[in-house]
Amino acid sequence: MTDWRTLDAPALRAERDRLRARYDAFRARNLTLDMTRGKPSPEQLRLSLPMLEGAEQHYVSPTGIDCRNYGGLEGLPEARRLFGEYLGAPAEQVIVGGASSLAMMYDVCVRAVLFGVPGGEGPWGRRETKFLCPSPGYDRHFAICEQLGIGMIPVEMHDDGPDMEVVERLVATDPTIVGMWCVPKFSNPTGAVYSDEVVGRLAAMPSAAGDFRIFWDNSYAVHAFQGEPAPLRNLLTACTEAGHPDRALMYASTAKITFAGAGVAAMAASPANVAWNLRVMGIQTIGPDKLNQLRHVLFLRDMPTILAHMRRHAELLRPKFEAVQRVLGRELAGKGIAEWTDPRGGYFVSLNTLDGCATDVIRMAAEAGVSLTPAGSTFPYKRDPRDRNIRIAPSFPRLEEIEAAMELLGICVQMVSSDRLLGR
Amino acid sequence: MTDWRTLDAPALRAERDRLRARYDAFRARNLTLDMTRGKPSPEQLRLSLPMLEGAEQHYVSPTGIDCRNYGGLEGLPEARRLFGEYLGAPAEQVIVGGASSLAMMYDVCVRAVLFGVPGGEGPWGRRETKFLCPSPGYDRHFAICEQLGIGMIPVEMHDDGPDMEVVERLVATDPTIVGMWCVPKFSNPTGAVYSDEVVGRLAAMPSAAGDFRIFWDNSYAVHAFQGEPAPLRNLLTACTEAGHPDRALMYASTAKITFAGAGVAAMAASPANVAWNLRVMGIQTIGPDKLNQLRHVLFLRDMPTILAHMRRHAELLRPKFEAVQRVLGRELAGKGIAEWTDPRGGYFVSLNTLDGCATDVIRMAAEAGVSLTPAGSTFPYKRDPRDRNIRIAPSFPRLEEIEAAMELLGICVQMVSSDRLLGR
Repeated sequence: MTDWRTLDAPALRAERDRLRARYDAFRARNLTLDMTRGKPSPEQLRLSLPMLEGAEQHYVSPTGIDCRNYGGLEGLPEARRLFGEYLGAPAEQVIVGGASSLAMMYDVCVRAVLFGVPGGEGPWGRRETKFLCPSPGYDRHFAICEQLGIGMIPVEMHDDGPDMEVVERLVATDPTIVGMWCVPKFSNPTGAVYSDEVVGRLAAMPSAAGDFRIFWDNSYAVHAFQGEPAPLRNLLTACTEAGHPDRALMYASTAKITFAGAGVAAMAASPANVAWNLRVMGIQTIGPDKLNQLRHVLFLRDMPTILAHMRRHAELLRPKFEAVQRVLGRELAGKGIAEWTDPRGGYFVSLNTLDGCATDVIRMAAEAGVSLTPAGSTFPYKRDPRDRNIRIAPSFPRLEEIEAAMELLGICVQMVSSDRLLGR
Repeated sequence: MTDWRTLDAPALRAERDRLRARYDAFRARNLTLDMTRGKPSPEQLRLSLPMLEGAEQHYVSPTGIDCRNYGGLEGLPEARRLFGEYLGAPAEQVIVGGASSLAMMYDVCVRAVLFGVPGGEGPWGRRETKFLCPSPGYDRHFAICEQLGIGMIPVEMHDDGPDMEVVERLVATDPTIVGMWCVPKFSNPTGAVYSDEVVGRLAAMPSAAGDFRIFWDNSYAVHAFQGEPAPLRNLLTACTEAGHPDRALMYASTAKITFAGAGVAAMAASPANVAWNLRVMGIQTIGPDKLNQLRHVLFLRDMPTILAHMRRHAELLRPKFEAVQRVLGRELAGKGIAEWTDPRGGYFVSLNTLDGCATDVIRMAAEAGVSLTPAGSTFPYKRDPRDRNIRIAPSFPRLEEIEAAMELLGICVQMVSSDRLLGR
C-alpha cells in the first residue's frame, strides 16, 4: 500500500474517481445504518433473560429484606456486597442505586454544585470550577459539566491513560480544577486501559483545590472481548494509601452486563463521601428499586459468575469488532490518511482522520445512509480542535451492517482525504 | 362521656391514677410497635405479585419497543398513556420515570434552583424564594425546601384544602413565593380532599411571582378505602383554563398500588414544563427502567383495572383504619382533649391533642414501646406551633398491633391531658 501523502495529483484524482463510483453505488442502496450508540445487541440482552425467571418468587433477600417495600437508601446489603467485590471496596463504602450510573454521577455533581463536597471549600456553584477532560472522551460526561457551568480543560489521551505531565501540572497549580472525568478501562472511545503507573500518579499527585475529585467511570470493568480481562489498579485504594481517601469516586453499572435500560448502578467511595451522599440523597428519595437489585444479586452472584457471563458477551461482540478492523484495514491501512484503535474490550473504536476531515467524512457517510456520532462529540464543548476524531460503535448493528458501514466509512475517509491532499 | 375540661382536680387525679396503672401494665408487655411509616403491608404487596409472572417473556412493548435497551427519556409510550389517563393529561404531557415520585419532585426543584423554570425570572437559587406549606403536611416535602434553601410559610389545612383566603393573599402580594406543596386527595396526614372550589381558586388566583408553581402530589388518587372513590378536580385543566397553564406540576406513583419500593412514578404538566424537564433530564440520564414500566402497563392496563385492584387494597386497609377509629373513640371521644380525622382514603389519621401535649404524648408512647412519627414532623422546620399534631400510620402493622398501639396512644393522651388540666 502506498502512503497517499506521497501520491501526485493525477494518481490521487484517479483514486478519487474510483471512490466516487463506489460511493454512488452505496447511495443507490438506500441504507439506513446507525453506528452512533454503544447499545448492546438483542442477542446480548437475551443472555440475561434468565434473570427475570420466577421473578414473582424472588422478593425477599437472603438477609430477609422484603424488597417490594420502602427503605434501604444505600441499596440492598447483598447488592452492596456484590458491587463492593466488583469495584474493589468494602460493602459499607458502596451505594447501589437505580439503573443509571450517569444519573449517579450527575447527582453527585449537582450535590457538589449546591452544597460542596466533604473537606471542600463550599458549593462549587459559588465559585469558578473546572474539570480535566481526557479527550477524546465520553460526550455525556462533558455535557454534565457544560450544563452545570463547570469549565472543561481537554487533556490528551495516550494508550495508557491521559497525559500525566499535563494533568499533574494543572491539578497542582490551578485551584479551580475540582474534578476530572476518567473511563479508566476500555476508555470511551479509544479503548485505552489506564496503566498502574497512571493510576498511582492520579492518586498521589498534589492538588491545588482542597476538594479535587476523580470521577472514575468504570463502565467496562469486565467488558474484555479479546484476550484476558485486563487488570486495572484500584483507584480508591491507591488514593487512600496516598493520603487522599476522598479523591476517588468510582462508578459501575450493569447496563452492559444485563440490561442497558434496566440494570443496576453503583458507586464506591471513602466513608466521608458515602456519608455525605447518603445525607443529601435521603431528602431526594426513600430508596432505590431493591427488587431489581435482588434480581441482579441472584443472577450475577459473584465475580466468577459475572466473568463467565461476560465471556458470552465477548463471543457476540468479538466478531463485530474484528469486522471493523478487517474492513478498515482493507480500505485504509498503510495509506497514511487514518489511524484507529484496536481495543481489547469496551464498546467503541476511535478513528482519527487527517486533520480537518472528520466533519466532512461524517456528513458524506450520513448522505449515504450511515449515521456516525457527530464530529466533535468526543471533545469538551463538542469541539475537536483538529476535527479528526470519529467514534465507531459496532455493538448493536448486525455483522453485515457493520461491514457495509465500515466500507462506506473507509470510502468517505479516502474521498475526503484525497480532496484535502489535492488542496481542496 | 364528660368533658375533662369541666372536671375538678380530685376527679382528674382519680382518672390519672387509673391511667397510670394501665400505662404501667402496657410497659410491662415490652411491646415494640412502629406506627410511623406509611408503608403498605405484606398482604397488600402480595396483590401485585402477578405483575412479575412471566417477566422473562415481557420485554417488548405493545408498540414494539425493546424495553431492555437504552432510550425513551420521557418513558415508555404505553406508560405515558396509562399515567395520562390516571392523572388526566394527554400522554405527550406526561413523563414516566423511576420508582420515586419524591425524586421527581426533588429533581424538578433542583432544576428550578439551578436553572429557573420556564417563564420564570431565573434560577431560584439566586434570589429569595418561599413555598406555601399547607400544614399539617408531608414532612418529606418540607425537607426538600429546607435542604434547597427555599423558605416555608405554613398555611392552615381545612377539611376542603388549605385556607384559601390566606393562600390567595400571600401569593398575590409576595413575589418571593414561587411554589406550594399540595397533597390534594386524602392529604397526608389529615385525609382531606381538596374541594372543586379550592382547586378552582388555586388555578385562578393571581400570583406576584411570574413563575409560581403548584406541586400537586396526587399520591393517593385512587386510594379510597371507604365508600366511593372521591372525585378531584383536575388542576392542570383548571390552570390551563384560567390562563396559568404552567402553574400545575402533577405527580403520581404506584408506590401504594403495586410495590412501595419498586413502583413507577409519573408527572404531568404543560408542554412548556415537560419540554424544559426533558431538556435538563437529558443530561442527567439516558432513560428510566422501561422494563418495570412495561410490567406495570401490562398489569394495571387501564383505569377500571386499577380501580378494581385498589378495591382489594381497600379490603385490607379498611379494618385497620376502623380499628383506629374504634379504639380512639373508646378512649378519647367526648372528653374534649383530642380530635382526630376519619379519612375515606389515604394512609394516615391525624390527631390533635390539647395545645402543648404532642411531644409528651409521643415520648410516653415511645417509652412503652410504640413509635409514633416525631412531634412537629408534619410542619415546616419540624415545628408544630401548637405542639398538638400526631400522625398515625396504620397501614403496615397487624390489626392487633394497631389496637394495642391506639389503646396506648389513648392512655398517653389522657395522662398528658390530665396533667395539663391539673396545671402540671
